[in-house]
Amino acid sequence: VEKFGGEVKVKKVPIPKVKPGQVLIKMEAAPINPSDIAYIQGKYGIKNDPPFKVGLEGSGTVVANGGGLLGWYLMGKRVAGITTTSGIGTWAEYCVTMSKQVVALDDRLSFEQGASYFVNPLTAIAFRQFMEKENHKACVQTAACSSVGKMVYRLLNKEGYDVINIVRRDDQVAIMKNLGAKYVLNSSDPDFEKKLKELTHQLKATCFFDAVGGDMTYTVLKNMPPFSICHLFGHLSGKPTNGIDSSHLIFTNKQIKGFYLGIWIRQQSLKNRLIWSRFFSQEMDKILKTDIAKCYPLEKANEAIKFYTENMTMGKVLLKPSL
Amino acid sequence: VEKFGGEVKVKKVPIPKVKPGQVLIKMEAAPINPSDIAYIQGKYGIKNDPPFKVGLEGSGTVVANGGGLLGWYLMGKRVAGITTTSGIGTWAEYCVTMSKQVVALDDRLSFEQGASYFVNPLTAIAFRQFMEKENHKACVQTAACSSVGKMVYRLLNKEGYDVINIVRRDDQVAIMKNLGAKYVLNSSDPDFEKKLKELTHQLKATCFFDAVGGDMTYTVLKNMPPFSICHLFGHLSGKPTNGIDSSHLIFTNKQIKGFYLGIWIRQQSLKNRLIWSRFFSQEMDKILKTDIAKCYPLEKANEAIKFYTENMTMGKVLLKPSL
Repeated sequence: VEKFGGEVKVKKVPIPKVKPGQVLIKMEAAPINPSDIAYIQGKYGIKNDPPFKVGLEGSGTVVANGGGLLGWYLMGKRVAGITTTSGIGTWAEYCVTMSKQVVALDDRLSFEQGASYFVNPLTAIAFRQFMEKENHKACVQTAACSSVGKMVYRLLNKEGYDVINIVRRDDQVAIMKNLGAKYVLNSSDPDFEKKLKELTHQLKATCFFDAVGGDMTYTVLKNMPPFSICHLFGHLSGKPTNGIDSSHLIFTNKQIKGFYLGIWIRQQSLKNRLIWSRFFSQEMDKILKTDIAKCYPLEKANEAIKFYTENMTMGKVLLKPSL
Repeated sequence: VEKFGGEVKVKKVPIPKVKPGQVLIKMEAAPINPSDIAYIQGKYGIKNDPPFKVGLEGSGTVVANGGGLLGWYLMGKRVAGITTTSGIGTWAEYCVTMSKQVVALDDRLSFEQGASYFVNPLTAIAFRQFMEKENHKACVQTAACSSVGKMVYRLLNKEGYDVINIVRRDDQVAIMKNLGAKYVLNSSDPDFEKKLKELTHQLKATCFFDAVGGDMTYTVLKNMPPFSICHLFGHLSGKPTNGIDSSHLIFTNKQIKGFYLGIWIRQQSLKNRLIWSRFFSQEMDKILKTDIAKCYPLEKANEAIKFYTENMTMGKVLLKPSL
């Protein structure tokens, strides 16, 4: 990408060299995440000067390593990895990242499933942690029909929490109902706020996972019970939040908290990471399953982004160098 | 008050009867707090249907009690009290409240000083607790020249925290400088945001106590370092907050938290309350001192409110039945 918000261009460059502690992955599949799009626009938590490479996570095979026990262990293995600490860049034929940001994939997991191993599953795990730590009984989530939304629903529902799923179209209501969701609200419904208020108070839903931002944040939060907390983790609306009544926040003791996965991960203990790693390998094709909508070759990255942003509900769009 | 936002009228009513656990106080002085004004407008955390009595706190002498050890102990004593759990009403000749919401005043404290014993000092104590619990080094506060602002400055400064004091006029800058404040910014200054950003980053000011609300909340918060927390406790602007960039909150992990003293007090341990009670009696005429701007008789309550809202920087305005 040669300027913020610019097109993604495919260029022939030398295969990156591995440094100590790193591995070189021959890439097989990489998802387009909202965070990738934000990164391209220069609006992500990590910001590099153009020109820059793109792609936060993906799957492939380790073909070289820069030494170390972990590096040798991963050698030749099918893996999933993220590239946040080593320069972004999974949308490529080859990609370098730190060995400790890579995990070996279970045999029964395809490269396609493994491509979304980190960002969405860890987000869902983080939300489960908030539900427990902050002592909530039920929660609300926006963009419920997104890949991460479905995952969050499945995980929290299994743990016994009530989840109020907000979507914005009737076909999305149907998808969530098909998934077994009991509480689905359409934000385009003229009675949306009334229904939301009734439901949040009835279920004591005091936690809100907001992927949309903008006016949606306060529209939902103001219809929740006192002491509610909004974990704001996405900005799909791209718009600013207006019209917050300070008095309402004060007297209901409500909170809006920015949540950025990259920071959260660094705050987690090694013990927790190991527990989750086990959970991931067990559940990646069940609770943490990602629907794949479509695969594109690298050369069609811009077309792929366009398709993804227009059809987010359909599932993940993957880039595959082999196509 | 016969309707929300209406005038305060003086009426002759029977002296209220004490119930078990309560005391009757012959009132000497009661402050006008922003919370009283919000209560009159129906915008406070406690909302009663009109007609209602007004006055959250004040001082006087206990002249009757509804039994109990505490009630008998307080009998005949000079006291300060709040009325949040027993129907508001310190703006009166007599007032009933729960014995446990009353403390005996030290001999060297005047009724005028004792009148503001609770709301502002407890707010300052709460903020000190946040500074410690959330591990901040420095903070920002708006309306720094208000009674509670000066108190917060004196308390946190004494505890070794850096305090960036935001005021909105040059004469208020002078008042804060006179108090010894090192960091004072005028929000009317065209370079305000630039100076604020430099100072918050230099001092690592990650805590923000906001009495103003509206656009001030985000104007300040966006110029603070990552991980900053805004404790929103007042809405002096009376305006909504617009233009919050969701992405900014997400990637800097910032938070906006409503703070309501009435809820906070109920969450505090008895041990803490006893520690503070001792601290209050020692510091009420020093760190927790309240400047008195002017005293009015009850009959001139509306005039007093007008004077107070136009001259908040001058100190507290008291209502005194004896005048």
